[in-house]
Parts: sequence; structure tokens; C-alpha cells
Amino acid sequence: MTAKKPDSKKPAWSGRFSDVPSDELLAFGASLPIDRRMWQHDIAGSIAHAKMLARQNVLSDHEANAIVAGLQEIAADIEAGTFEWSLADEDVHMAIEHALIARIGDDGARLHTGRSRNDQVATDTRLYLKERTRDVGRAINALRRELIELAQQHNEVIVPGYTHLQKAQPISLAHYYLAYAQMFARDFRRFMAAHQAADVCPLGSAALAGTGYPLDRDYTARELGFSRVSINALDAVSDRDFLLDALYAAATCHIHLSRLCEEIILWTTEEFGYLQLSGRYSTGSSIMPQKKNADFAELIRGKTGRVIGDLNALLVIMKGLPLAYNKDMQEDKEPAFDALDTVEACLRVMTGMVAGLTVNTERMSTASTGGFMAATDLADYLVEKCNLPFRQAHEIVGSIVLTCERQGRTLQDLSIDELQGFFAGFGRDVEAALRIEKIVEARATAGGTAPKAIAVQLEQTKEVYNNDEQEIALI
Amino acid sequence: MTAKKPDSKKPAWSGRFSDVPSDELLAFGASLPIDRRMWQHDIAGSIAHAKMLARQNVLSDHEANAIVAGLQEIAADIEAGTFEWSLADEDVHMAIEHALIARIGDDGARLHTGRSRNDQVATDTRLYLKERTRDVGRAINALRRELIELAQQHNEVIVPGYTHLQKAQPISLAHYYLAYAQMFARDFRRFMAAHQAADVCPLGSAALAGTGYPLDRDYTARELGFSRVSINALDAVSDRDFLLDALYAAATCHIHLSRLCEEIILWTTEEFGYLQLSGRYSTGSSIMPQKKNADFAELIRGKTGRVIGDLNALLVIMKGLPLAYNKDMQEDKEPAFDALDTVEACLRVMTGMVAGLTVNTERMSTASTGGFMAATDLADYLVEKCNLPFRQAHEIVGSIVLTCERQGRTLQDLSIDELQGFFAGFGRDVEAALRIEKIVEARATAGGTAPKAIAVQLEQTKEVYNNDEQEIALI
Amino acid sequence: MTAKKPDSKKPAWSGRFSDVPSDELLAFGASLPIDRRMWQHDIAGSIAHAKMLARQNVLSDHEANAIVAGLQEIAADIEAGTFEWSLADEDVHMAIEHALIARIGDDGARLHTGRSRNDQVATDTRLYLKERTRDVGRAINALRRELIELAQQHNEVIVPGYTHLQKAQPISLAHYYLAYAQMFARDFRRFMAAHQAADVCPLGSAALAGTGYPLDRDYTARELGFSRVSINALDAVSDRDFLLDALYAAATCHIHLSRLCEEIILWTTEEFGYLQLSGRYSTGSSIMPQKKNADFAELIRGKTGRVIGDLNALLVIMKGLPLAYNKDMQEDKEPAFDALDTVEACLRVMTGMVAGLTVNTERMSTASTGGFMAATDLADYLVEKCNLPFRQAHEIVGSIVLTCERQGRTLQDLSIDELQGFFAGFGRDVEAALRIEKIVEARATAGGTAPKAIAVQLEQTKEVYNNDEQEIALI
Amino acid sequence: MTAKKPDSKKPAWSGRFSDVPSDELLAFGASLPIDRRMWQHDIAGSIAHAKMLARQNVLSDHEANAIVAGLQEIAADIEAGTFEWSLADEDVHMAIEHALIARIGDDGARLHTGRSRNDQVATDTRLYLKERTRDVGRAINALRRELIELAQQHNEVIVPGYTHLQKAQPISLAHYYLAYAQMFARDFRRFMAAHQAADVCPLGSAALAGTGYPLDRDYTARELGFSRVSINALDAVSDRDFLLDALYAAATCHIHLSRLCEEIILWTTEEFGYLQLSGRYSTGSSIMPQKKNADFAELIRGKTGRVIGDLNALLVIMKGLPLAYNKDMQEDKEPAFDALDTVEACLRVMTGMVAGLTVNTERMSTASTGGFMAATDLADYLVEKCNLPFRQAHEIVGSIVLTCERQGRTLQDLSIDELQGFFAGFGRDVEAALRIEKIVEARATAGGTAPKAIAVQLEQTKEVYNNDEQEIALI
Repeated sequence: MTAKKPDSKKPAWSGRFSDVPSDELLAFGASLPIDRRMWQHDIAGSIAHAKMLARQNVLSDHEANAIVAGLQEIAADIEAGTFEWSLADEDVHMAIEHALIARIGDDGARLHTGRSRNDQVATDTRLYLKERTRDVGRAINALRRELIELAQQHNEVIVPGYTHLQKAQPISLAHYYLAYAQMFARDFRRFMAAHQAADVCPLGSAALAGTGYPLDRDYTARELGFSRVSINALDAVSDRDFLLDALYAAATCHIHLSRLCEEIILWTTEEFGYLQLSGRYSTGSSIMPQKKNADFAELIRGKTGRVIGDLNALLVIMKGLPLAYNKDMQEDKEPAFDALDTVEACLRVMTGMVAGLTVNTERMSTASTGGFMAATDLADYLVEKCNLPFRQAHEIVGSIVLTCERQGRTLQDLSIDELQGFFAGFGRDVEAALRIEKIVEARATAGGTAPKAIAVQLEQTKEVYNNDEQEIALI
Repeated sequence: MTAKKPDSKKPAWSGRFSDVPSDELLAFGASLPIDRRMWQHDIAGSIAHAKMLARQNVLSDHEANAIVAGLQEIAADIEAGTFEWSLADEDVHMAIEHALIARIGDDGARLHTGRSRNDQVATDTRLYLKERTRDVGRAINALRRELIELAQQHNEVIVPGYTHLQKAQPISLAHYYLAYAQMFARDFRRFMAAHQAADVCPLGSAALAGTGYPLDRDYTARELGFSRVSINALDAVSDRDFLLDALYAAATCHIHLSRLCEEIILWTTEEFGYLQLSGRYSTGSSIMPQKKNADFAELIRGKTGRVIGDLNALLVIMKGLPLAYNKDMQEDKEPAFDALDTVEACLRVMTGMVAGLTVNTERMSTASTGGFMAATDLADYLVEKCNLPFRQAHEIVGSIVLTCERQGRTLQDLSIDELQGFFAGFGRDVEAALRIEKIVEARATAGGTAPKAIAVQLEQTKEVYNNDEQEIALI
Repeated sequence: MTAKKPDSKKPAWSGRFSDVPSDELLAFGASLPIDRRMWQHDIAGSIAHAKMLARQNVLSDHEANAIVAGLQEIAADIEAGTFEWSLADEDVHMAIEHALIARIGDDGARLHTGRSRNDQVATDTRLYLKERTRDVGRAINALRRELIELAQQHNEVIVPGYTHLQKAQPISLAHYYLAYAQMFARDFRRFMAAHQAADVCPLGSAALAGTGYPLDRDYTARELGFSRVSINALDAVSDRDFLLDALYAAATCHIHLSRLCEEIILWTTEEFGYLQLSGRYSTGSSIMPQKKNADFAELIRGKTGRVIGDLNALLVIMKGLPLAYNKDMQEDKEPAFDALDTVEACLRVMTGMVAGLTVNTERMSTASTGGFMAATDLADYLVEKCNLPFRQAHEIVGSIVLTCERQGRTLQDLSIDELQGFFAGFGRDVEAALRIEKIVEARATAGGTAPKAIAVQLEQTKEVYNNDEQEIALI
Repeated sequence: MTAKKPDSKKPAWSGRFSDVPSDELLAFGASLPIDRRMWQHDIAGSIAHAKMLARQNVLSDHEANAIVAGLQEIAADIEAGTFEWSLADEDVHMAIEHALIARIGDDGARLHTGRSRNDQVATDTRLYLKERTRDVGRAINALRRELIELAQQHNEVIVPGYTHLQKAQPISLAHYYLAYAQMFARDFRRFMAAHQAADVCPLGSAALAGTGYPLDRDYTARELGFSRVSINALDAVSDRDFLLDALYAAATCHIHLSRLCEEIILWTTEEFGYLQLSGRYSTGSSIMPQKKNADFAELIRGKTGRVIGDLNALLVIMKGLPLAYNKDMQEDKEPAFDALDTVEACLRVMTGMVAGLTVNTERMSTASTGGFMAATDLADYLVEKCNLPFRQAHEIVGSIVLTCERQGRTLQDLSIDELQGFFAGFGRDVEAALRIEKIVEARATAGGTAPKAIAVQLEQTKEVYNNDEQEIALI
């Protein structure tokens, strides 16, 4: 008896089966509609594998060359949109292997030597993740660059700083933009950590135990641009930590985006009125002609839920799975792809949105002046000039504020006599201490909002940014 | 000046804007690729609205007829696949309204009278949800029917019951199947609760405040098959509880599916060997020719993570949103659609999978006999025959088990003399008490595993099922 | 050999073990610090069980009486704070049973006849849940009552209605409060559904299979106030759906609380200034003497995360667990207790907080008048008076708004001549159409914001509330 | 008028308030029961701050000395359990400051100069986190050490490797243990990343803007053992990323723990029987005397839900918060503390549990021999000896497996003639190829399960471990 050629349209594992799933069931089980996004990575992995098999004399050069040529042809067809994806194929791996066998015959059936879909899918996914985390890293950096730019432009602008959404102390608008620059710098680091986690080549782990073929794993890893090979085959095919790392990075990045969105939404209301969105980044209402909504900011904020849901999904999927590969893990790609697509798109939209903001300098300035925002400084005055303990100074100023509020007046409205009625130690120099520019200028500690402290922050922030840009340029 | 006809390809709200979002941004903000699934519901809502406006003399009969005819034509085109969806349209509502205006002119521009997209999208989504919760309810019932069927077939089969994945007490396989029948009965109720929550018509709430047009909200609600109209317009456009209810129902249903999957996976291992999957519900390995994996069960178990992630996503999206509509809420549809599609597909696959299981009766029976599964009954024997307090009986049997285990023997191996060495009160009738059929037969309390208790359970379970079938037939 | 009395301080299951966990490990595994909250329910369950065993002649009356008396004594000691909880006891069940045996001897060791901790803990938890869901239901109703009260008081007050946090249309403040009344009415229903889900007595299910003792399960259920007994023993000990139902109810309720908090935080800012918190519901700053923060609203909003986390935790815990009881399920109580405590406390604080709000009627009124909030009405005017299609009217008004905005004017500032410059059909009656009271009055559709529509809503809302009050009074 | 001394029992911010929250409300808002765990860090932070203020001449040496001495006295009292925590104090910061003022008078009231609770709580929490992430890092390393130890002991033991919970290929038990060693090595890195994220000193950021006092932030940071000071004050008080990083590390670590638990639970069943738990790490049943449950493994698996819930909670809390501090953020500590406590305790229990496992070598070996686990090798034989393409070889072996299964035989049962009936190329050397030791030995690629590959893995794993031990010794 001679062996019959495998039917390229039957599932890869059908040899032992007398009955196989229906088309409907195969569709339910198939990951092709999702994982075919990784076709380039699958083909790259297969080419590297074939070349290595030839170097190690597991395949003849002729066989390997046929495989490589066939795969390149398939790649060209996919690129050109002429490749026919068949839903009968479970996944991108089988779709491409079937096509290869159909094109080059038996040689194609030799490609899967010393390999399992378990290490193959792990390799593809890691290659894909490396690319996507780099993309998102670049999108983060574009936003950081814009924030730094905005900080440089708005160092002179004073805006109320808030805690509990109540006006707290006047700050420079640069201080505000630089706060977000720090957050996104941390997100960048998290994406780089996810990139590094993905940068380990599992190819050669086979099903879970390694293989008996004399593979050169270092060669394949190098060919594919991986920095390291995995240490343990069982772990290599069971591990999805690198996806979780990327999803977590996406989640925290979205937390920061959502906070910035919340403030853009608030600051573009009629009530705050500090910012105006460009027409390109706002939309109207189908019933209320006057509306100019911060729709994009709202949408990005909303998408935070989606990304947190994606992270949660993968954590739940992985919980309690025995080693090694289980089909549950096929559900890893959708949340990962979705979260990375979402965060990258949101970062790009956010970058354009902040760049297009019109700052209402006058409104910000007026808002920073009125009210009781100088109260801390009045207390500090009592500490510094009258040597009162801070807690006592705080209490005196508290009662001044209460009185003003009852009378509908502000701190600046009080005469020196009135102030001395609260505490005898107030002097004529108190007025100067309450001037808003003075207040901002005073907060000159490292990280503070005074212009000279901002200048230092700006340099530090740029330096971190520049280093990160250099790092990502190399990956 | 005369009014110029609105440009059907500009955003519906562009009147006040001097600059508008780029195509890329519109694509980012568009929900059309997602919400066009609701085209039937959108058109149904618009037809009902137009007819009502005519009844109330807000539109002329002629205008309303033109609108209805135009919408029906559009529906026919979408059905036939000849409708051209334009990505320039933000959402399904605008896509259809633009098409209407393009086809019938000014009359079409009168459709949106007394309506806002806020109440329109709420109406569409509720109509859609009613349909989908009914579909899922039916899929649940199909599974329940199968489980009841299986219970009827396997009342005589004895299988080990487990706690802590350790053999605990022998039970009837019917008892096992009926346990799942209870779970899915509860899930059915939750989907019906979500259906009822969705069954409230918000149309006529307009943007958030109602409208000045003399709408007959009861008429539209009746036309669309809603049981009630919403009480408060502001709530009606801000509320997504009905989606959360459906997502929560999907999550608990998936918890139950995941438990059943876990056991199918376990019971089809070589080690347990109680069940065998039909070839239609299992797949093989690309590298290990002998594998017959419970892939579908694993996939359903994995999809539980996805559905929990969807629920979580919508909860996060809704948290802290001020009233009324915010664009964040556009992100409600993807998790809801995904969760409902997922749970319905999984229920259908599960129904086929359990129907196709081969029960290895002998293996189950052997497994139920060996070991120490009669230990509780030995303790009960001491309580009943020797009037020992249960705790004391439990302790005696504990030391018998320990001794057996050390000697590699089972309870059945012990002679009456040996037993009496542990406690003098053991009599010759103890042997009968340890026979497995006897043990199962004994547990005859309501809800117990004895055949006659199972017969009662079965009737109760069927009755609940039959009532639920009648209920869902009416919605 | 005679049986030795069990050592009441050893684990209940130690008979078979030659080595047992260390104290440290027992502490890790113990649930006593958490579940002892259910001591009353545990004792009630045991008393009902003992009485039933006596009725069924499994225990003598004398034994049962001793048990009941012993348990009542223990209850009195716990109540009085004189009961000594020992950390050596794994859980509340063993702690009480050990104490009982220590007090009344062998009779106490008979209590556990025909019962397992599996059905015991399910019974206790269900009794506890029934109580707690009722408590939370009452707390919800207190808040609903307050909201209805506030709506009645503020029907005349006009406030801007918002979408996208942009002023949209003027609404009555009653309309606003009643929107929240609807949300909490739905939450009430969800808690009642959780109550009903808990209202099933599992006692008598024993470990998973029922028991051979002739229990009267209906009697015990009645004694404990349960409406039904569970149908299947295996399900009865594996099911935690009722906890999930309560957690889900808590999560949606917290979503609604978080939305109300968000608006209280916004509306008490200097920028909005619509509301003022009473001093009792706000706090200050340790450094900024002028601050008056909506801390409690922020804290309730924050606790939403905690409650969603609790729901998520239990879903994850239950995923993929094989039947029947697994120790993982011991982790069910902490999230459930935490979520119910949190939501009840937050509801009570919220009730006091909204009751203590000072409404700045004038500020609300001014804010409702200015700007472009009458734009929809201007469009409606064109539709009604000039018979323009709505879309065309919308576009005309859009360009009026754009012109006004560029010139820094409002709609009310425009002369009739100027209006006619945009569209010839404007008449002198347009001015009346733009008056704010007129606008609110006009929106008289069911559920709308007009005073007469509010009067209807109020009646409907009260009726639902009254029915719910009657329902909860009976449970 | 002279200033009156502040009342140390009134809230720190009460100066401006005419009415203050009730005790009940203060209790609701108080974080003291939770955050008092950080008393050491709070006192350390205050001492460093006071010393720095003296160095900078903001306080006199005399004042600073009094403060330091007072704080040390308070620390001694807390340590000794004699400090009276008052529930009237909102948080640990105020509790300690009040006590200080009560003890040393006015000097104590000077401590809060140039500081806000916003930067104070951030500093305390970061100090605490650094400690706790280090603790957890050590607990991880103890488990890694144990796993390496076990791998060294069990290199010779062969156990079935699984995919899809179906026997796949025989592997060395060392291979198995080393797989988990890789996972926990990654978790170690994540905790170190969280440690590094926490290692930034925010003190000196004050409320959000820095302060006018001439603070030396570098000095305080050095005193407290921080490596860096924060760059931007606004970010420094708004940032909780470092907590999220720790929670995420805890979540992935728990995922790995849950997988190991799942397998311990499976492998200690009667059905698998590969492992036996020591009596110290298992418990029994209150009704079934024979049970020996893997309770601790189940509990750890269950606690995974709790930790994922904690991560989710903090993500939800932070979503959409405007800058800077909001009271929502007070809810950060409970999930963080809970998750870190949980993961540390679980790691310690797990370390003892795996150390105490009895390996049933014979059972493992038998299980590895039977069945079709040599099927991959049979296919590889055809590739290597007969030069068949792998896909074709796979198909031939598939049909052999199917035939065997139908006849109830194994691969080893087939005669060479029978094998040749399937494919003529089979030779006499096939028998050797199917011997289990041979199979394991063959998989010698890097990361494979062959003894010599294991030896390399072991060295690599130890090297990583040793480096990590050195790293953590320094922090």
C-alpha cells in the first residue's frame, strides 16, 4: 500500500476520525476570521522554519526553496487581495499550509516537520504583538510630543488647579499639560515592557515537549528578529502573559486618556469655558441645532470600558487552565487585537484633538483670580510673617473665608483693617501676597508650578521623551 | 431668502459648523458598521412614527404615505443586498434617513419631526434586544429539553457524584443532568427579565424633555409591539439598564455553560472515561495523531471570559455618566451584540454536544462501586442501627477509611469481624447497606438521587419547562 | 472497643487523617472571621432541622429539646458578646456545633444527622441574603421617597437639561429628580428578584445527593420562612446564582448612584453653582481653607468600582467549577457581604445628601435662559408655522446659531428683521415661542417636562413606589 | 484678637464650616480603619519632612526636635498597642497629627507646613507599596526555589504531558516544574516593576502645585529611601499607577497559581492519582468520612477571582477622574492591600503545599506508557526513516490510531506486520522508537524535555533566579 496524499481541504487532524464536525461547527470553532490578520507573521515564521530545517538537513535545499517560494507567492496573493480564504480552514496556519500544499504538492506537506500549531501560533502572536506594541508606543510618543509642545506654548497661561473638582490653587497651563506627559511616559514604559515580554521566540517548542528533530532554535529566532528563545517548551506554548501585559498597558493608558477626556469635556462646557474644540473634533445634534459636543472625547472615555473589559476577559479565560494548550486560549486574540486597535486609534485622535484646542486664556485667568484660591497663600503668609503654626493659620483663614462667603465677598475685597480684625498680625504686604502671578511664581519647589520650576520639569520631561524615542527607533 | 434643501450627505447637525471632522475622524466616531444590524428595527420605528404623525395631523397622509413607501423600498433593498451603505453616514439612523430624503425629497426631511436620535436609538436597541433575548431564551429551552430527555434516558445509570473533585457519593446520571436543567431554568428567567426590561417604548421622549408636537406615544408603542411607554423622557434616553440585564443574564448562563464544559472535558479524559464525544464535537491535533480533544467544550468555557468582559465593559462605560445622552453610550452595542451572539451560539453547540455524548455506563458504574463512596452510608448505618450520634459515627468511619487506605483495601473488603474491631455494634446487615444500588435508592428525600425522588424532580422540572415554553411562545 | 467521644476541638473531618493542617494553615482556610456574621441564620437553621428530626422520629423529643435549648443559650451568649469564638474552628457552622457538643454532650453530636455543611452553608447564606436584600430594598425606597418629595417641591424650578454635558433644553427640576426615581425603581425590582432567587430552601440536600433519613423538607422550609424547597440536591449545593443576582443588583444600583454623584459634584462647583451641599455632607481641605468638597458624593462614586469588582470576583470564582461544592465557593461571602454593605450605606448617605441640598433656583433659571437652548423650539416653530420639513428647519436654525455665536449674541437678541433675513417666514409670534416658560410648558407629551406631564409622571411614579412599599412590607 | 489654638479633635478643615458631618457620616467617610496599617510610613514621612524643614530653616531645630521626639513616642505607643485610635479622626494622617499636637502643643501644629494630605498620602502609600512588593517578591522567590528543588529531584520521573486535558506526549516531571518556575520568574519581574514604579517620592508636591516654602525634596526622598523625586506635582498627587501595577502583578501571579492549583486538584484525584497531598495540606468532609480534599488548592484558585476583582475595582475607580485628588481615590487602598495580602499568603501556602506533595512515580510512569502517546513519534519515524512529508505521516498514524481504538488495542500491541499493512516502510526498529524513555530522550532541542535539555534549562532557570535574589536583597 502506498500512502495517499492528504486531502488539503480536510482538517489537519482528521486521520483518526470516522466522523467530523459539520461546517457550522467548524465555523463556530474557527479562528480564521480573527487570526488571518497575522498572515504575514505566519508566513515569516514558516519561511524561517523551512530555511532552518534545510540548514539542519531535515529538509533538502530543494524542498526548502520550494516551500519558501510557495509561501512568498501566497504572501503576494494575499497582499494583492487575490488569495481565497476558505472558511473550511480552521485558522490562518492551516489556510496557508493548505494553500502551500495545493500549490507545491508534497514538499509543502514537509513544512510542519518539528513544529506544532501550539508553538506556531505562539510565534505568530508574539511577532504580531511586537509590531503592535511598537505602533502603540509610537502613537503614545506622538501625543507626548504634542503635550510638551503645548506646555512650551502655554507656560504663561494661568488656569485654576482643581481638587475634588473645586478650584484649589492657580497653576500654569504648562503644569497641567506636563502632568499628562508624565502619565503617558509611564504608559510608554508599560508598552515597552509588553514588547520585551513578547520578544521571546517559542518556535521549536513543538506541542509541549520540544522535538526530536535537530532544530537550531537560535537561528530561527534571529531570522525573525527575536532577542531570546524560550527556556521551557511546556511554558512556551501555555503562556499568554505577554498578551496580558499589552492589555494591561492598554488599560492604564486608557485610564489616562479617560481622565484627559473628562477634563476636555468639562473645560469645553459653557460653564467652564476654558477650551474650545476645533470643528474637526466636535459634532452636533440631530435635533438641537446649537449643540457643539465633545463627542470624540466622550467616545474615547467610553472606549475605556471596552479596553478594561478586554483585559478582564483574558484574565478570566486564562484562570485555572491546566497546561499546556487548551482551546480556551484561542479566545486570546480578539480582546488583544481589539484593545490594541482601540488604544492606538484613541491616541491618534487625542493627539489631533489636543493640538486643535483653542485656549481661552482670558477666561482661565479670570477664573484663577476670583474666589478663594489665594486662601492657602494667606495661611502661608501668617506662617511666614507671623510665625503661626500652619494648623492655626489654616483655621484663621478658614473663618475669614466663611465670613466672606456669607457676605458674598472675596478675599481681595477685604481691607487691611478687616483682616486685622481676624488676626492682628496681618500687614500691608498681604495684598501683594494675594496677587495671582505672585502665587504661581512662589511655588518654585521641584515639580511646582512656578515658571522656573516648569522650565526644569520641561527639560526633564523632554529628556525622558528623547530617550524613549531613541529606544523605540531601535525596535 | 428661501431655504435650501439640506445636503443629504452632510452630517445631520452640520448647520452651525464652519469646519467639520475629516473622513478618518468620522469613521472613528461612526457606529454604522455595528448598528446597521438594527436596520429593520430602525425602519419599523420610523414607519410607526410616521403613521402616528399623520394620525395626529402633524404630517399629511400624503407625506406619511410617501415616507412609509420610501422606507419599505429601502428595507427591500437592504434585504436584497442592493442598498449602498455609505461610511460617511454616522449611524444606521442617518444612513436610512439620508437614503429616504434622496429618494422621496422634502417629505423625507419631515420624518424626524418630534423625534431625536436619542429616543430613536433607544427604541431601535430595545426592539432589537426584545428579539435577541427571545432568541436566546429559545436556545436555552432547547438545551433544557435535551437535558430533560437525557435525564429520562439515564435514570438507571449510576455515576460518582463529586465534591472537591473527589468522589463523594454515587448518584443517578439523571440527577446530574437535572441539576443543569435547574441552572438553565434560572437563566431563562433572567433573559425573560431582560426582555421585560427592554419592553418599554421610549419613542416620543425626544432629546430628553419630550416634545411640543402632539404625539400619541401609546399608538407608536402598540404598533411596535411594546407593552408599556416610558414614564420619564430624561431617564428614557439615558437608560441602558436593559442591556446590562441582558449582559448579566448572558454572563450567568455562561458560568453554567462553563461548569458543564469543565465536566465534559474531565469526563472525556482517559482518566475519567465516563463520556465520549461524537466525532462531530471533537477535533484532533496537527502534530499528535491520537488526540481527540473536547475543543468545543474548551472554546465555550473560554468564551465565558469574553462574556464576563462584555458585562464589565458596559458597567464601566455607564459609571459616572451625567444625564442625559453622552457619546460614551454609543459603545453599548458592541458588548451587548457580542455577548448575545456568543451565548446563543454556545447554547446551540452545547445542545448538540450533549445530545451526541456516548455514556460509558460500565465505567461509571465501576467507578461508583470502588473506593470509599459508601462511607457516609456506613456512618448513617451506625446512627440508625446503633443510635450513635452522627459526629461519633463519622469519626469511627473516618478511622476505618484511614486503615483501609493504608492497607490498600476498600470498605467492601472488610470482614464483619474486622468492622466489629472498630465498633462492636456492626451487624451482618451492614453488607447490604453498602451496596451501591441500595445507597442510591436510599436517598429518597425531596430533591434526592433515589429513582423515586428523581421521578418527582423530573415532573417538577418538566412543568417549569412547559410553563416557560408557553411564556416564550407568546412574546 | 467502645467508641470514644469526638474531640470537639478537632476538625469535624479529622477521623481519617493521620496528619492535619497547622494552625496557620487552618487560619488561611478558615472562613469564621467572615461567616460568623451569619450566626443567627446558622442557629435558626439548626433549630428548625432539630425540630424536624424529632417530628420525623430521627431524634427523640428529649434530644431535640436539648439541642434547641443549647442553641438558644449559645445565641444568647453571642448576642451578649460573651461567646468565645475560637479561630481553631473553620467556620461558623463548626464553631456553633462544637460549642453545642461542649455544652450538652452527645445529644449535640446528633444534630448533624441528615445534613452536610454543603446544604447548611447554602441555607444560612440564603437566609442571610433574604434579610440583606430586604434591607437594601428599604434603603432604596427611602431614597425614592426623598426623590419624589424633591420632585414635588421643585416642579416650578427650571434647570438646563444637558446632553454631552452641553446645555440642551430647559427642563423642570422635578423632571430631573423623577428620572432618578425611575432608575432606583428598577434597582428595587432587581433586589426583589435577588430576594426571590434566595427564597428557596436547600436544607435536606445533604452533601449533593439527598439523604436516607426521612426528612420533611417542607416543614423546615416553612419554619425558616422560605417559600419553596429546592428541586435538585446537586444543584442546591452548587448554586450561587442568588448571590450573583444580589451583586448584580448592587452593581447597577451603584451605577445609578455614581451618575447622581457625578452631577452633584458638577452642580456644586463654582462653575455650575446650581446646588449647595449642606455642611453635614461636605468636607474641607487640610491645606486649602476655602475648599468645600463633595467628598461623600466622590466616595460613593468611587465605591462603584469596588462593587463592580465584587461582582466580577464572584463571576470569576464560579467560572468552570465542576459540581458540586468546591472550596473556591467559600470565597463567595466576602464580595457579597461587602457589596451589600457598601450599597446600603451609600444609599443611606445619598438619601440624606439629596435631602440636604440647597437649590440655587435663580442660578438655574438664569442658566436656562441664556445661550441657545431655545434653538430646537425655533426649528419647531418653522416646522409648525411655515410647514418646513424638520431637517430644513434644523439647518436654518443651525446657521442662525453660527451667526449669533460669531457675533457674541443670543437668539433672543435677534430682531424679527434679522430673523427674516435667514428665513422669510418668521413672524412676530416667534418671540413668545422662545420664552423659557413657554418652552417647558410646550413639552407636554407623556413623559415630557411640561408641568402637566410632570403631574402625570409624579402620579405614576408614586403608584409604582406605593406598590413596591407594600410588597417589601410583606417580606 | 489673638488666635485660638486649634481644637485637635475637630476635622482639620473645619475652619470655614458652620455645620459639620455627623459622627455616622464621618465614619462612612473615614479611611482610618484601613489606612492605619500605614502608620509607620506616615510617621517616617513626617519625621523626614520635619528634619528637612529644620535644615531649610522653615522650622527651628527646637521645633523639629520636639516634633521628631513626639512622633517617635507615638510610634512607640502604637507599637506597644497603647495608642488610642479615635474613630473621629478621618485617617491615619490626622490621627497622628492630632496626637502630636495633643502631646507637644503648638510645635506639632507646625508640622504640616509646606505639605498637604495629598502628597502625604501618596508618600505613605508608596513607602508601604515598596515594602509589600518586596515581601511578595520574596514569597515568589521562595516558591521558585522550591520548584527548582523539585525539578532537580524529579528529572528521572516521566509523566504524561497534556494538551486539551488529553494525554499528549510523555515529559519529565522536571520539565513540568520548570514550566511553573518560568511563570513565577515573570511574576517576580512584574512585582519589581511595580516596586520601581512606587519608588518615586511625591513629598513636596503639596496639594497639586508645589509650595512656596523652600523645601529640599531630594533630602526627604533620600531620607525615606526613595530613588527619585516626582517630576510634576499635579501628576504626583493624582497618580495611582503604581498601585495598579502591583494589582496587575498580583492578578497574573494568581493566574499562574490558579493553573497550578487546577493541576494539583486534578492530579490528586483518584482518577489521575499522580500526586498525594500531605495531611497538612488537605481537609476532610463533615459528612463523608473518606474525603481528602485539596481544599487549599481550591481556595487559592478561588482567591484568583478576588484578586482580579481588586484590579478591576481600582481600574474602574480611576476611570474618568479629573485632576488632581478626588475622594474616590481613597478607595484605592482596600483593593491594593487585599490583593497583596492575598497573593502573599497564597504563595506561602503554595510553597508548603508543593514541597509536601508525594509523587506517585509508578502511576505516572504507567500512565505515560499506555495509550497513544507515542503517536507523534511514530509519525516522526515515518518522516525520518521513510522520508514521508509530515502531513502524510500524520494521516497514516491517524488511521492506525483509529483502528487500534476500535479494536481496544494500543500502538505497542501492533505487530510489525500489522504496521506494514498501514504503510510498507515500517521497519523492525520501530519498536525501539516507541519506547517511552527513548521518546523523552529524543526531545533534546533547547527547552525540550530530554534529560540533557532539562539540565540546560535548570542552569538557565537557576541563573535567572540567582540574579533576582541578588536584586531583591538590595531593595
